[in-house]
Amino acid sequence: VAAAVPRSASLSLLLPLLLGFLLLSAPHGGSGLHTKGALPLDTVTFYKVIPKSRFVLVKFNTQYRYGEKQDEFRRLAENSASSDDLLVAEVGISDYGDKLNMELSEKYKLLKESYPVFYLSREGDFENPVPCTGAVKVGAIQRWLKGCIGHPGQEFIRASGVEARWVGPKSTPVWSKSRCARVTGRERARAI
Amino acid sequence: VAAAVPRSASLSLLLPLLLGFLLLSAPHGGSGLHTKGALPLDTVTFYKVIPKSRFVLVKFNTQYRYGEKQDEFRRLAENSASSDDLLVAEVGISDYGDKLNMELSEKYKLLKESYPVFYLSREGDFENPVPCTGAVKVGAIQRWLKGCIGHPGQEFIRASGVEARWVGPKSTPVWSKSRCARVTGRERARAI
Repeated sequence: VAAAVPRSASLSLLLPLLLGFLLLSAPHGGSGLHTKGALPLDTVTFYKVIPKSRFVLVKFNTQYRYGEKQDEFRRLAENSASSDDLLVAEVGISDYGDKLNMELSEKYKLLKESYPVFYLSREGDFENPVPCTGAVKVGAIQRWLKGCIGHPGQEFIRASGVEARWVGPKSTPVWSKSRCARVTGRERARAI
Repeated sequence: VAAAVPRSASLSLLLPLLLGFLLLSAPHGGSGLHTKGALPLDTVTFYKVIPKSRFVLVKFNTQYRYGEKQDEFRRLAENSASSDDLLVAEVGISDYGDKLNMELSEKYKLLKESYPVFYLSREGDFENPVPCTGAVKVGAIQRWLKGCIGHPGQEFIRASGVEARWVGPKSTPVWSKSRCARVTGRERARAI
């Protein structure tokens, strides 16, 4: 019993220290979960922000994320400051406790095993986002985005069918509904 | 030395447990800082979201906040789901470490002692937000907002001078630039 007293005393001293350490050591002096330049969305704000934004790259992930892919995302979000029309957002999902944002994970039929999942919403159309399935690397995603969001001066024209396309002074890539990549001349002819 | 071994062993066991506990016990199963329905903004996302939104109620506060006022804000944010045109946002500010969002605190000349500070940005005009200086109570803020954001069908007309006003089928309150309250007939006549 005598030995237990100093131990519990040292723990009661350690607890606030640990808490302080965890908060202070959090990246960006913040929540430890905030990624600078990325908009954390939940089931309320998702439906307020996406429909009114031209381009939103949304990352769906578990609530607590770390590692290489998260580092790449962090750099991508910070670099997005210069893109006026592009918002980088993240939805943290947890399938336990109060099941944070599970509603969105179910809406898009996301599998936990596939996290992080990147979707691009164009012209507010959150019902038909374009999945970005390539490597989770800043450069790769930026190149993919560049193709997806067109060039300044171009306009995104949504057709009644599956195709939508950019028209304007520069090259005119054609997009299929389900992916976002430049297609070849033959494919383009077929798509139009 | 012999006594130190089991103690450090128990601590190494306790650390992940404490970390897990802290994360799990966070409100909303989330960051412990996330407020459902509120958009956390930083120096990048602030300038992307506000200019493109009709009405944004922004709360500036320290990064780690709790207590009665935070509870009122939490209720306000959750209740905002039904307001299409109104975004509820928060900017967490820390004046130590990496000085999170201090740039915004300086921009609006905010004093730490005054936190939480509520500003309403209208029609994307983040240079001239309207301060909400009343009681930090859901009801009071909602009534104030109701006055500020007008009625459906009304349009917000920005004049070239200091006045701006709502015009439309319902009553036509006139707003001074620096506050947001209905003014009397005599004041209105003077303002127009």
